[in-house]
Amino acid sequence: VPPVFAFLAVSPEATQLLLSLLIVFGSAKLLAEVCERFRQPGIVGAILAGVFIGPSCFGWIQPNDLLHALSELGVMFLLFRVGLEVKASEMLKVGGTAMLVATLGVVVPFLLGWGILALAGHRAIESIFMGAAMVATSVGITAQVLADKGLLAHRTAKIILAAAVIDDVLGLLVLAVVSSMAQGAIDYVGLTLTTSVAVLFVLAVAKYGTTAMSRILPRVRRNLRSQEAEFAIAMVFLFAMSLLAIYSGVAAIVGAFLAGMALAESVGQRVHDLAHGATELMVPFFLTGIGLQMNLAVFKDPGLLLLSLVILVAALLGKWIGCGAGAWSLGRLDAHRIGVGMAPRGEVGMVVAQIGLARGAIGQEVYAVAVFMAVATTIIAPPLLNQAYRGLAAPAPEDETTSFRLG
Amino acid sequence: VPPVFAFLAVSPEATQLLLSLLIVFGSAKLLAEVCERFRQPGIVGAILAGVFIGPSCFGWIQPNDLLHALSELGVMFLLFRVGLEVKASEMLKVGGTAMLVATLGVVVPFLLGWGILALAGHRAIESIFMGAAMVATSVGITAQVLADKGLLAHRTAKIILAAAVIDDVLGLLVLAVVSSMAQGAIDYVGLTLTTSVAVLFVLAVAKYGTTAMSRILPRVRRNLRSQEAEFAIAMVFLFAMSLLAIYSGVAAIVGAFLAGMALAESVGQRVHDLAHGATELMVPFFLTGIGLQMNLAVFKDPGLLLLSLVILVAALLGKWIGCGAGAWSLGRLDAHRIGVGMAPRGEVGMVVAQIGLARGAIGQEVYAVAVFMAVATTIIAPPLLNQAYRGLAAPAPEDETTSFRLG
Repeated sequence: VPPVFAFLAVSPEATQLLLSLLIVFGSAKLLAEVCERFRQPGIVGAILAGVFIGPSCFGWIQPNDLLHALSELGVMFLLFRVGLEVKASEMLKVGGTAMLVATLGVVVPFLLGWGILALAGHRAIESIFMGAAMVATSVGITAQVLADKGLLAHRTAKIILAAAVIDDVLGLLVLAVVSSMAQGAIDYVGLTLTTSVAVLFVLAVAKYGTTAMSRILPRVRRNLRSQEAEFAIAMVFLFAMSLLAIYSGVAAIVGAFLAGMALAESVGQRVHDLAHGATELMVPFFLTGIGLQMNLAVFKDPGLLLLSLVILVAALLGKWIGCGAGAWSLGRLDAHRIGVGMAPRGEVGMVVAQIGLARGAIGQEVYAVAVFMAVATTIIAPPLLNQAYRGLAAPAPEDETTSFRLG
Repeated sequence: VPPVFAFLAVSPEATQLLLSLLIVFGSAKLLAEVCERFRQPGIVGAILAGVFIGPSCFGWIQPNDLLHALSELGVMFLLFRVGLEVKASEMLKVGGTAMLVATLGVVVPFLLGWGILALAGHRAIESIFMGAAMVATSVGITAQVLADKGLLAHRTAKIILAAAVIDDVLGLLVLAVVSSMAQGAIDYVGLTLTTSVAVLFVLAVAKYGTTAMSRILPRVRRNLRSQEAEFAIAMVFLFAMSLLAIYSGVAAIVGAFLAGMALAESVGQRVHDLAHGATELMVPFFLTGIGLQMNLAVFKDPGLLLLSLVILVAALLGKWIGCGAGAWSLGRLDAHRIGVGMAPRGEVGMVVAQIGLARGAIGQEVYAVAVFMAVATTIIAPPLLNQAYRGLAAPAPEDETTSFRLG
């Protein structure tokens, strides 16, 4: 603020807030447009925007509480919107294949990450944490690419979504195990209990959520006088389910996805449109938020760079081989699509690395490698996914009211 | 989080965030519904929700940075959405009447507030600050009520909106004068400069914004490949104009309103719908945010309570008489409507009081009186407004795509 106006700017926080919204949102949309020009998914541009404006490059924006909150809301709304497009019954139908995809997609990258760091001479706990950071898929990224291409109804999309939810439960289980290893002892009773609660929560909502909502929602809606009451109920349900998910031991975004899925068959188009508006506004903060965390320090040390690249290749191949093998029964092309679709680690890999760093289980170097792996898989997967689905018809771009478009 | 799950809840901030979103949004919508049952505007319920869950009552929620940011975004989007429904040419047409309404609506409450506190034996600077806190209208509240009733196209609605924008410039000018009085000397050159910049900014955007946007937007839109590119451009424009408004010496919400107005004739229905979704999500945080600030301390001291009630009556009568006199040429009923519509002080009155407190110009007691006045006028005005417009046809509730509905 120029000095002469200083006493009129009644809220300096508002200025700061608006400036960071403008920079983050504007740069994300600008680079997304650039990517689209090169026929690449726009979300890659948004993540790169985060790398550029963040501390590792230009340093215009520092990660802060507000951007973090908008980012959490962004990925929550993204998964909610995806859930709204998915029928629970169809998800449960692909449950067997998804279970195999998720399990092999957890085991192979974990062993690869562990093995590579052990071979490179790192401490056991550090190697194990690296494996854990390579386990969980960032379903938001793949869901966004598939949604943009209008492919959420494709068989492989359903398997990827279901596998990513299972993956999240498995990933948090792995994290719990390695976290307690870092602290000394494993609490088997506690682990069994939390896993059971998590599995029960996911299964119960997937199985009974749709029926419950289709009974409750019309009754509630009939009796409410507020405007946009259905949207308000959907939002309260979204917040409540995300919170319940955390209390049940799974990520908030899994709760958001389940909330959307439970509402999929009972809410009207109006709720889709309004939720889409909130999503459109906040998703760029999620995508740039991933880029903001990027640490380019790995490029300064040749040894570390080599390790990072090996880990990156292992992270991509681990999911490709593990998930691809799990989906082998669907044929080579669909197995390839699923193997690529499960590759982005995004925010999930970074959270694991942050926990490892906070508990002293990993050092700054391995942390930088893990973050590099998480961001790089997230940037590399969308173009590969784009390629893997090339030729599949996307809906006409005019058909805005019925097709589902994000980004 | 129950202790056994503690190590699985990967982000305690996310839990805290979700819990406060659920409580704030849920209680706002619940009490809005209760108000609708009593045929009162829902926003009164949302503000009361803030009083109940806030520190002055149950204490479930403390005002914090994130809620504050959501609240700022909420009122910004609210004004943006209102701007989208208003043609700049029509606003400029009622400019003369609006100017008279705004000026008298600033002078009368200011003199009343100053006089009452001076009579009650308060210090001169404290009395002047009280007057200043009673000056500015919270346009968001009235706009929301009128929008809910589908009355934004009514002649009085346009005058209220235009007067509220002028009011904001005058209010910030008054604040600048009393602030510099609190610090000792008035910088006349600086004041003239800032006022000129503010007036120029508002007039330039109001006069040329629509034409500029209707030339630029179609061209930009034709050349962009991103999905929902028009919405992205609208958001960037919104953030940029709000920021420019602050730099020009007016409130961010005035910039948001002008941004909406400039886009009103060039964006499609899709942008309206998406912006509406973001608005619906965030406006409850603005409304409860007002209630959260409520200080019930005034009820504990009979003398303070009496002063608060006298100031409240003066705040209501001051705008009613001042703005009503300014709009007298429109006939008694419309003058009454405008006098009532300008009454809510909301967040603007509280910001003035907070600045006065921070600069040591007013004490805790006068601060509590000012906040009470700001919240109470905001709660009392909507039902009065409801009454004043009774009988005017609202659009059919089914017609969701064309009518403009908030709340």
